[in-house]
Amino acid sequence: MSAELLRTIPEIRSRLAEVRRSGCTVGFVPTMGALHAAHGALIRRAWEESDFVVVSVFVNPTQFDRGEDFDRYPRTLPADVEFCAALDVDIVFAPDAKEMYAEPHLTLVEVSSLSERLCGEFRPGHFRGVATVVAKLLNIVQPDSAYFGEKDAQQLAIVRKMVTDLNVPVTIVPVATVREPDGLAMSSRNRRLDAGERRIAPTLYRALQAAARRVASGATSPEEVRSAAMAVLGSEDAIRVEYLEIVNPERMQPVERIDGPVRIAAAVWIGATRLIDNVLCQPPA
Amino acid sequence: MSAELLRTIPEIRSRLAEVRRSGCTVGFVPTMGALHAAHGALIRRAWEESDFVVVSVFVNPTQFDRGEDFDRYPRTLPADVEFCAALDVDIVFAPDAKEMYAEPHLTLVEVSSLSERLCGEFRPGHFRGVATVVAKLLNIVQPDSAYFGEKDAQQLAIVRKMVTDLNVPVTIVPVATVREPDGLAMSSRNRRLDAGERRIAPTLYRALQAAARRVASGATSPEEVRSAAMAVLGSEDAIRVEYLEIVNPERMQPVERIDGPVRIAAAVWIGATRLIDNVLCQPPA
Repeated sequence: MSAELLRTIPEIRSRLAEVRRSGCTVGFVPTMGALHAAHGALIRRAWEESDFVVVSVFVNPTQFDRGEDFDRYPRTLPADVEFCAALDVDIVFAPDAKEMYAEPHLTLVEVSSLSERLCGEFRPGHFRGVATVVAKLLNIVQPDSAYFGEKDAQQLAIVRKMVTDLNVPVTIVPVATVREPDGLAMSSRNRRLDAGERRIAPTLYRALQAAARRVASGATSPEEVRSAAMAVLGSEDAIRVEYLEIVNPERMQPVERIDGPVRIAAAVWIGATRLIDNVLCQPPA
Repeated sequence: MSAELLRTIPEIRSRLAEVRRSGCTVGFVPTMGALHAAHGALIRRAWEESDFVVVSVFVNPTQFDRGEDFDRYPRTLPADVEFCAALDVDIVFAPDAKEMYAEPHLTLVEVSSLSERLCGEFRPGHFRGVATVVAKLLNIVQPDSAYFGEKDAQQLAIVRKMVTDLNVPVTIVPVATVREPDGLAMSSRNRRLDAGERRIAPTLYRALQAAARRVASGATSPEEVRSAAMAVLGSEDAIRVEYLEIVNPERMQPVERIDGPVRIAAAVWIGATRLIDNVLCQPPA
């Protein structure tokens, strides 16, 4: 089997018009490439619900705040196409930046409030770039459903709100975070870690679990829960915490008291690599 | 014949899904109601190119900068439905504000640069409201083509750019301004003019024509062309000019020298009523 690689918007539009005329439902997995097992989980979920599956591979320049991070982002298109072929993906859509952003590109989609805290605070403009490119990709592919990983919980919340607010005719399907056996959330950025960094990277998830246990055992103070996580992270000198917050899962705003489901979300730096992770947890009934 | 009046998003979505399954092309005319002959021209143009025609009637609160103007905007839904029926419109979509804007509505679509001058300068947030509601309506109706009047030239330029930048799968069709026999551009706001105001209102178009004649006869200085229009407008004490500019037709930015097609665009106040108009003109070959 081989996945069809398309590079231009007119090509994929015309191919998908045929597909839709034949009555097929289309599932869509937008990615930045460097595909790994967590993308595989998104693709398998798409197959459970769709007759035809499209994966996009586009390292979107407008969501990188630092040129350096954009330049260093892994690009592995031939391997990505093979990966997709092995999972029976029908189309890999891999446009270049010129195809996606005609000059001058003047239109921005912004989801206020949800974009301001957590990653939004440390990556100015990042979520405007994400919301805009997702709006574009959804208009190009016009899928029935689109699949997003819960590891990027803030991105997921923003995409869902954008789709609701703008009445985009698509179902957004969240897919659970896929983890390495030691708990590290899978991410294309993990391959930047050296052996020593990789060894301590699971500390992030262990810290989130420690915090979640406090919530599960009845802690209502966000500060107390946060301290439990920070104590674990503090055990590794090589980890620098960018943020660690207890937020409302829909609004992504810090809670003052834990009296319902919360998401514990964090970003840390290990050397030159930034990792994010989060867990959803419930106070005892 | 009667047009089907639908008030909710699920209703129109399900009705249009049927229509599209039957292979019909859909033409869409978004309006704020108070329909008149210029809307009729949009609807007739839609009929030339579509199998099925939808008109929306929605006085969009987010594009009014002053509550007073929003409150005073004419609302004539029963007459609008009759007007549409007489033109064989299939569906009139008239949602209320609660149907269109779920609380909290956090997503904004902004077309920078095009939105800053002319009306954008005097109506802060207006075009963000327009771009956002048009994006929503296009996602709800998913038409093949949508029809916009050239009287609102800046709005048209912004909608076109938004559709291009966000890859919205629709063709935007501009329709020439429809005028009263004395030249006044048709507008729902004209009915606010009293008899004396109505008598002097055509001065706006006469001023634009005077300026266009200068361009046609070879004037290259925007200041000279502008003066020609201002002289005509200055003949009526009751007219207050908000702006009058010579702009590039795509970028809607003032030109420094007239060496290609330009749009002469103006907004004036007559009493408590704001009127806009514009003409496209060409220097001699």
